[in-house]
Amino acid sequence: MSEAPTDMMQRLAAATRAGYSLPQEFYASDSVFQADMDRVIGQKWILAGHVSQVPKKGDYFLFRIGVEQIIVIRESATSVRAFFNVCRHRGSIICSADSGNAPRLVCPYHAWTYGLDGRLIAARLMPDDFDKADNGLLACHIRVFHGLVFLNLSDGEPVDFDTTFGDMEPILDYHGLADARIAHRGSYPTTANWKLVVENFFECYHCVPSHPEFCSMHAAESIVAVGAGPSSGPADAVAGFMPKLHAWEESAAALGRPIGNIDDAADSSHLRLLMQRMNKDGWSAETQDGTPPAPLMGKRTAPDGGRMHLSFSPFSQIVADDHFAILFLFTPRGPLASDVEMIWLVDGRAGEAEVDIDKMIWGYHATTTQDKKITEDNQAGIMSSRYRPGRYSDQEGSVIKFQAWYLAQYGLAPGG
Amino acid sequence: MSEAPTDMMQRLAAATRAGYSLPQEFYASDSVFQADMDRVIGQKWILAGHVSQVPKKGDYFLFRIGVEQIIVIRESATSVRAFFNVCRHRGSIICSADSGNAPRLVCPYHAWTYGLDGRLIAARLMPDDFDKADNGLLACHIRVFHGLVFLNLSDGEPVDFDTTFGDMEPILDYHGLADARIAHRGSYPTTANWKLVVENFFECYHCVPSHPEFCSMHAAESIVAVGAGPSSGPADAVAGFMPKLHAWEESAAALGRPIGNIDDAADSSHLRLLMQRMNKDGWSAETQDGTPPAPLMGKRTAPDGGRMHLSFSPFSQIVADDHFAILFLFTPRGPLASDVEMIWLVDGRAGEAEVDIDKMIWGYHATTTQDKKITEDNQAGIMSSRYRPGRYSDQEGSVIKFQAWYLAQYGLAPGG
Amino acid sequence: MSEAPTDMMQRLAAATRAGYSLPQEFYASDSVFQADMDRVIGQKWILAGHVSQVPKKGDYFLFRIGVEQIIVIRESATSVRAFFNVCRHRGSIICSADSGNAPRLVCPYHAWTYGLDGRLIAARLMPDDFDKADNGLLACHIRVFHGLVFLNLSDGEPVDFDTTFGDMEPILDYHGLADARIAHRGSYPTTANWKLVVENFFECYHCVPSHPEFCSMHAAESIVAVGAGPSSGPADAVAGFMPKLHAWEESAAALGRPIGNIDDAADSSHLRLLMQRMNKDGWSAETQDGTPPAPLMGKRTAPDGGRMHLSFSPFSQIVADDHFAILFLFTPRGPLASDVEMIWLVDGRAGEAEVDIDKMIWGYHATTTQDKKITEDNQAGIMSSRYRPGRYSDQEGSVIKFQAWYLAQYGLAPGG
Repeated sequence: MSEAPTDMMQRLAAATRAGYSLPQEFYASDSVFQADMDRVIGQKWILAGHVSQVPKKGDYFLFRIGVEQIIVIRESATSVRAFFNVCRHRGSIICSADSGNAPRLVCPYHAWTYGLDGRLIAARLMPDDFDKADNGLLACHIRVFHGLVFLNLSDGEPVDFDTTFGDMEPILDYHGLADARIAHRGSYPTTANWKLVVENFFECYHCVPSHPEFCSMHAAESIVAVGAGPSSGPADAVAGFMPKLHAWEESAAALGRPIGNIDDAADSSHLRLLMQRMNKDGWSAETQDGTPPAPLMGKRTAPDGGRMHLSFSPFSQIVADDHFAILFLFTPRGPLASDVEMIWLVDGRAGEAEVDIDKMIWGYHATTTQDKKITEDNQAGIMSSRYRPGRYSDQEGSVIKFQAWYLAQYGLAPGG
Repeated sequence: MSEAPTDMMQRLAAATRAGYSLPQEFYASDSVFQADMDRVIGQKWILAGHVSQVPKKGDYFLFRIGVEQIIVIRESATSVRAFFNVCRHRGSIICSADSGNAPRLVCPYHAWTYGLDGRLIAARLMPDDFDKADNGLLACHIRVFHGLVFLNLSDGEPVDFDTTFGDMEPILDYHGLADARIAHRGSYPTTANWKLVVENFFECYHCVPSHPEFCSMHAAESIVAVGAGPSSGPADAVAGFMPKLHAWEESAAALGRPIGNIDDAADSSHLRLLMQRMNKDGWSAETQDGTPPAPLMGKRTAPDGGRMHLSFSPFSQIVADDHFAILFLFTPRGPLASDVEMIWLVDGRAGEAEVDIDKMIWGYHATTTQDKKITEDNQAGIMSSRYRPGRYSDQEGSVIKFQAWYLAQYGLAPGG
Repeated sequence: MSEAPTDMMQRLAAATRAGYSLPQEFYASDSVFQADMDRVIGQKWILAGHVSQVPKKGDYFLFRIGVEQIIVIRESATSVRAFFNVCRHRGSIICSADSGNAPRLVCPYHAWTYGLDGRLIAARLMPDDFDKADNGLLACHIRVFHGLVFLNLSDGEPVDFDTTFGDMEPILDYHGLADARIAHRGSYPTTANWKLVVENFFECYHCVPSHPEFCSMHAAESIVAVGAGPSSGPADAVAGFMPKLHAWEESAAALGRPIGNIDDAADSSHLRLLMQRMNKDGWSAETQDGTPPAPLMGKRTAPDGGRMHLSFSPFSQIVADDHFAILFLFTPRGPLASDVEMIWLVDGRAGEAEVDIDKMIWGYHATTTQDKKITEDNQAGIMSSRYRPGRYSDQEGSVIKFQAWYLAQYGLAPGG
């Protein structure tokens, strides 16, 4: 018999040192990826898209994660459902297009027909003792939350959504995400383990060497102090930056913005993070020249000059300023394959002529294109027999925390 | 050590329920595929082509199955031989073209030269104690039967051919297969396990949803009653259809057609099937408008308005009407890869101008193109962790029987 | 647990017979390839290129072997270094171009900066107890020897270079390899195990059937007698050829050529081979018409009409005549993948107009293109379940010796 997953993870955790990158197998092994699907990825509420992708009854899109395909489909004006894309008859996929509209879910193979609630409503010529009620589509846990579609693959009852995310409501409401519209989407499939995608996003130590466009949009002192989370920079840089930040918070609050940050502990279920910051001096928006590419978003009546990074979990992120928001979807597909997708949202009332897409995507399209390359190069080097877990810098505290959180999903900690 | 094949198959059979599709591993696992190569695929007489592919001495074609390549080559006017495409010197393949002519089989690497009987006839500069007689090509069992080339990969003595297939002689003789000529060939490689290819072919429950061209050529009542084998439809549909069928049988017999069906039991070696049916009313041939695309075939002196499906085994099929016959070759290549090839045969005396190829292939080319997609979609859904073996309909009796036959090859049955 | 490497190799060696090709697993198994990387490939001095690829300080090229990437970089006029292409921080590759120039080795991810000696010289914002001295690039053993760049992947102290190769100095010096320049390079990636690439190169039994251009450049009697090493031909052919060879040796020595051959025993560390031969009658060079494509090479003052094959190890070869030399690099990449590269060298003083590249590469480009095909065909046949180790001819003595050497690396011999 092969090594049991529990034994494997214990062995690997024992070989891990806090403050150092993980041993190679965490980033490369098929068996670790299977364990991750079961114990980590499969247990989390993961951002799959925006509700505006399914405006009309029967509209659906497919969300692919690991070997799974989930159909996200609008059942009614008030209900969106999610089902595993597997017919209960012989197992065929039911939807093969990435998106579409289906008044009913009809398997193209033998025409077993399911309602938009997943119930089997027609199956020809079945034995008398066949019970359609037992043969509905297998549902995937879904929650639409301020326009954001979250899925949870768990076989059993998942961690409670509202308990986990309820305190984020005022923020999402203020940004108008429920009524936003999609202005642009970009796909950046990355030949790397999902942990490398996450680790890359959770630190800004690489921003100066790797991201000229990103850095041109942000104040250097901000990147150093809090570029990768509240505790991400050196103490003196943080201390120098904080008074400016607090001044901005007061002015933004006066305009109605809900102020406050979130920084979940490593033993939390989702390791959430919310950072709210002011723009670089003179910059109204995260664009090349700092001018806005779209109208104000959400409940704003005037710009507050701020931006935020909101992380629902290591898999699901939002970056937003006064004029647009970007959903980042980091979706594990295999040990060495991750999907990275960005969805740019603008205010739902913004007309097409009011949005300059090229201007809006300039910074983060370049940055994510760069991230794809550096993450793939990171994976390539880790495959060497001479890869050794390396020491993290003072700017990579969020990565260290992510790793502690990751091992905690297995009841483990660095060193065992 | 990994799980022994016997233990694996017992575990999987125990997880199988009669009347339900098989557990995932049967359709996806490398280990199951290896076991299938040894115990099922490698023990059967498998249709590899038609003898007209090798009309002249030295003509050969390659047949690929699993990781094997077999050279089928004409030795003389009365003999066709088959050899594994592996030189006895260093193991190089000898033929690398899909087909050709070779007066001798000369390995292009070191020029070891074999006769068309496989004997090593030249090997330069070998040690004195080297015996050419011990170094002939390894033969593959072959039998040419009414023009059909069958191979059996078995290392030992295979199941006797004549005992297995002898009773099919009158049928094959009447259809003139020995003297037929190839009018067209089509290849439909399918990214799916061979069992899914077979299961798809063994039921017509999917015909109405998936095959508009096929259904337009066949009477609906026939599809329901016997679309997937003698016991494939609901009892009342069968009862209603039978009188019409018997009337046709009498008229066809009066014109000389050997009448009768075959329906091997699940514990048979090859699970043969022969169904003879009349065409849809007003249809002379399986074409778009029912008119013939080619002259009468075989010993017919007049059309009898019939058609047949003859299955030598789950891997080897013939579909034929009065004017043409199609060989279906379902060839396993890997756990998730199967070759599907169709060879359209017409009467050997039919001139090129007498055969309308587009008309002839219209129905089954469309149908097999559709089968490729639905079978691949079936495989895609089965890869999900949420695939559950599903209940078969009353129209899928032949699939249930196929699965019983498959498990019987391992001495097992559904449930253990 | 899987079978231990030691047990596996013992089992496989026990199944091996001297004088026969190896069992299938040696040529196809992942586990054997891993063992080969550790015990054979990773322990040898392997030719990676020519020093003229890195003429200026900071010039580098990448050498890929197995899953490893090695940076070969010029540190100074007198020093060339080699490092594993893995940053000590998070493991990213540092160089992603095949070659280039870098004043320092700066990881593009987080800008950790290494000197050309591999020492870490800059790493921003690291914890106070971080010691740069412990975080230099991991070096790969390197030796530049008469212009030839050799690498040794060994983790510990490798076999001594000078003890192994010192006696080859006069030959390399006479051929002027240290000052040669690269006139042409060719890449022939081969879908085959490295042992098949080596075995193909170590015998000329296949030359007549497979290599018309090669044979047109060489005397038939030479191919038969010594085509694949000093002991490679039948005794009578060797006896007939030797007087001619000795006459040439005398004349060449009179012109200053160091005469002598090398033929390491099967229990040697590198299985070196040096054969010096005269050209075919009337041929001045290994070209289509026998006329030289380039000026005399090295210390020659007049042509001596000779050629040589020098093998540093099964992985590293030189073929040279009076006017040009070819480096052959056989580099294992995976169980079924090998890189084959040829580097044509001419005298360092030869001007571009003095070298006819098409003429120079005519013979060996064709031959290696052919070798790629026959080696891939060899691999394809070996994958069959019907592959049986085959008897070697009298012209394949060097292959038998190579296999004995290979097994000796594991402390084993054919039969156990």
